[in-house]
Amino acid sequence: MIQWENLSTLSSFEELNKVERVNLVEVMSGEEGATRAKNYRSEMAEGLSYNYAAKEVNDEVLTALAKLAEEAQLVEKFEALYNGEVINTGEKRMVLHHMTRGQLGNAVEADGVDKRTFYVNEQKKIAEFANKIHNGEITNAAGEKFTTVVQIGIGGSDLGPRAMYLALENWAKKNNTFKMEAKFISNVDPDDAAAVLNSIDVAHSIFVLVSKSGTTLETLTNESFVKDALKNAGLDASKHMIAVTSETSPLAKSSDYLAAFFMDDYIGGRFSSTSGVGGAVLSLAFGPEVFARFLNGAAEEDKLAKNKELTKNPAMLDALIGVYERNVLGYPSTAVLPYSQALSRFPAHLQQLDMESNGKSVNRFGASIDYKTGPIIFGEPGTNGQHSFYQLLHQGTDIVPLQFIGFKNSQIGTDVDIQGSTSQQKLCANVAAQIVAFACGKKDENSNKNFEGGRPSSIIVGDQLTPETLGALLSHFENKVMFQGFVWNINSFDQEGVQLGKVLAKKVLAHETDGALKVFSDLLNI
Amino acid sequence: MIQWENLSTLSSFEELNKVERVNLVEVMSGEEGATRAKNYRSEMAEGLSYNYAAKEVNDEVLTALAKLAEEAQLVEKFEALYNGEVINTGEKRMVLHHMTRGQLGNAVEADGVDKRTFYVNEQKKIAEFANKIHNGEITNAAGEKFTTVVQIGIGGSDLGPRAMYLALENWAKKNNTFKMEAKFISNVDPDDAAAVLNSIDVAHSIFVLVSKSGTTLETLTNESFVKDALKNAGLDASKHMIAVTSETSPLAKSSDYLAAFFMDDYIGGRFSSTSGVGGAVLSLAFGPEVFARFLNGAAEEDKLAKNKELTKNPAMLDALIGVYERNVLGYPSTAVLPYSQALSRFPAHLQQLDMESNGKSVNRFGASIDYKTGPIIFGEPGTNGQHSFYQLLHQGTDIVPLQFIGFKNSQIGTDVDIQGSTSQQKLCANVAAQIVAFACGKKDENSNKNFEGGRPSSIIVGDQLTPETLGALLSHFENKVMFQGFVWNINSFDQEGVQLGKVLAKKVLAHETDGALKVFSDLLNI
Repeated sequence: MIQWENLSTLSSFEELNKVERVNLVEVMSGEEGATRAKNYRSEMAEGLSYNYAAKEVNDEVLTALAKLAEEAQLVEKFEALYNGEVINTGEKRMVLHHMTRGQLGNAVEADGVDKRTFYVNEQKKIAEFANKIHNGEITNAAGEKFTTVVQIGIGGSDLGPRAMYLALENWAKKNNTFKMEAKFISNVDPDDAAAVLNSIDVAHSIFVLVSKSGTTLETLTNESFVKDALKNAGLDASKHMIAVTSETSPLAKSSDYLAAFFMDDYIGGRFSSTSGVGGAVLSLAFGPEVFARFLNGAAEEDKLAKNKELTKNPAMLDALIGVYERNVLGYPSTAVLPYSQALSRFPAHLQQLDMESNGKSVNRFGASIDYKTGPIIFGEPGTNGQHSFYQLLHQGTDIVPLQFIGFKNSQIGTDVDIQGSTSQQKLCANVAAQIVAFACGKKDENSNKNFEGGRPSSIIVGDQLTPETLGALLSHFENKVMFQGFVWNINSFDQEGVQLGKVLAKKVLAHETDGALKVFSDLLNI
Repeated sequence: MIQWENLSTLSSFEELNKVERVNLVEVMSGEEGATRAKNYRSEMAEGLSYNYAAKEVNDEVLTALAKLAEEAQLVEKFEALYNGEVINTGEKRMVLHHMTRGQLGNAVEADGVDKRTFYVNEQKKIAEFANKIHNGEITNAAGEKFTTVVQIGIGGSDLGPRAMYLALENWAKKNNTFKMEAKFISNVDPDDAAAVLNSIDVAHSIFVLVSKSGTTLETLTNESFVKDALKNAGLDASKHMIAVTSETSPLAKSSDYLAAFFMDDYIGGRFSSTSGVGGAVLSLAFGPEVFARFLNGAAEEDKLAKNKELTKNPAMLDALIGVYERNVLGYPSTAVLPYSQALSRFPAHLQQLDMESNGKSVNRFGASIDYKTGPIIFGEPGTNGQHSFYQLLHQGTDIVPLQFIGFKNSQIGTDVDIQGSTSQQKLCANVAAQIVAFACGKKDENSNKNFEGGRPSSIIVGDQLTPETLGALLSHFENKVMFQGFVWNINSFDQEGVQLGKVLAKKVLAHETDGALKVFSDLLNI
């Protein structure tokens, strides 16, 4: 029987607090450091591995974390989730995004259908549609092929798909699976849509309108923007647009769209990259086979999250180390630092995934809690970040736990040898160096050049960023966030915190304001 | 006589700690809220204004902050800085970036020349060069005009210029001053350079190599990358490259470049957007007149930073409110949230500007300090962020101070009216609504839908994002960071924290490693 208990009530958490702190400078130096670097790793799917040698843990801490995982029933809760329990208690919904890429447990029926079959069918429909676009069966009115796909969506309908597109764009070009350029319109700022429309050939563009509810203000506004542009170009908008939405949304059966593909209420926006939300644009851009490979990578990684043995469940391990850093060591933020330009927007996606899921102050039953939940997440790719905010990470007054990601090989494969090493080697040398620099520091008589060290990091290493490894990476972080939500006993799957702003914005637009809100409305000329 | 004292030793700081805390929910409600929203604003240059009504301040706090400004001699320290005192004590250098856009005080001579004259001359040289590129006096070997400019630089040679380019790209296109598309290569990841090179027509591209020292690993590596590409295209690289560097760098007099433009050691990378580092690429992209207007905006804002009256010195006021939030209220991070898609990378620039300047643990004399310095800075444009990490900002367990930016008008001017309002009005309505939602919250019986409020924000409002307002914005934040460094008694102008990683990376590449570093090097296949 699953018990949903607050973290602060767990005896294993009390024990964890009593475990002696690890001195990272000491344990990461010399032979002990080498041994840790070799052994403190957890194998992931698709040849990735999660190395946590430079985290402030040792066997004692790991044992305590394993007890916490057991007492908090993390794997049992995951089982309940993928077997269709109503885990999203606030909205009274199941949480089924794992099912978009695999069947982890029992069949789950909802809305009168088997959900795995439903998601697979939608993926197939998208694949067939994408193939018809690519082979010219579906064209514009002039019978010409579409060359560009434009995603219209915001939040989870934008950040995840955009990050995944950028992650695979160069890989697809290199591997001859690149089909169409993708662009994204998200912001209600009219300059966003106008700039994208100015940069494309609308006559050869297909637009993917993504909104689960079919009521998202930004997305509907930008749809009108695009329809205006199509009309002004003398084109029939309904021949240039498809929709990804829920079957109950006003968009589902509209004749305004060439086709509609469905998701449902059991897939939260920030977990929707492996559903049609990511599927349509990525299948159009790279071909359905590439999207299927991405799903396979995620599915393989998901399987590891079922393992009750902590060190063989990298997502759960990463989650618990994060909880240790947040609730025992007291660190308020985490930086995500991929040493891969292709992952330039992956941190922005993780920022939503993590902060929107776990930025909560009440537990899943609505009772207040007396411990910290989700941290601030931020990051930029390395080596760029090294020349920017790393100064604070190395010598600032707060400690920021770091999450590195690195690959042995580049995607494009074009490289240059300077001073005896390639760019890729320089990139990898830098991330290896940073781990040790942060952990061990370096004493210097000049205090300005002194590095205290003791700054924890982990690294996920892979051979190359491919559809499969990208899927595995995405799954790892989705499951990490889920496990942390379980530990904190919060509902990671709703987002009530975004509602108040929407309500007040409507009042402003209706000129139903007083007090400070009226003054700010006037100030901004509304 | 200027005294450089630690914050914790100032009696005004002790007093500040004793001032009663402001209850933001209370003071921002009803008529009091309206009065604050009207009165708590500080006029900036170029029609901008800084509104701090939704910060946790009142007249008592402001009086205490004014005393702190006085005791810490903030304006006197700024005067010393622009009059040429050696403020960068670590590197024993003057700090003269303000002089790239105006003469605030006395003439300053260094390296045998008047520095203002030097910067103006470099700006003129760049303008003349850009005009020759634009009018076809300087062309490629085939006599054809250059159509693309590619900046090669990292850190301050990348983030600032890139953010400024994106900020003005659509404005320039709309106002017919757009001359050339700009691209940026920064990361040592070979896929960065390869992808940019694959996306341009190298035969019609001019490359701007930016490195003050002429020794930055990433930049020199990427230069070789570009030279290879030019050679492979049968082109003479020296006819496609210019350099922005210091006069003492190996690049300065090289025949490898069409031209070289100079900066000097008195301009830190993160403060270099108004020097040739931003000047070359922005003058080429938009024309020298646009760059000059950008400088004028910055110069006008700089003048306000000389004002000893706190509420008439918006940068100093913003700085001190930030210190209050960091050192009295204990908030560890700040989010920068521009409601303007054109400012999409402005937060990334501020992240470097702030965190690299003030992420320090020793004072300007190298003594350790017993208070917090620079916070974590992160952000994304609104309304996008609302659908991402705002959940945590509204309902998370930590309070994150917010810095909004908004403009009454869009840049492109194309808009659509849906449900009685334009997209621009919706954008502005959202930011107005967020300020009040964060400050006042909203009680709800359902604790999951309850908003505590009490979450502080400020907003900078302007008519439109133009070269002038962009310059003023940039100056505001540069000076804010400078004033905070003065309060914390740290040296905001060096970055010793980035050195250790560089040293260790060299060891990795030379295979001179042992212990954990060797294991990580092997893991990454170096």
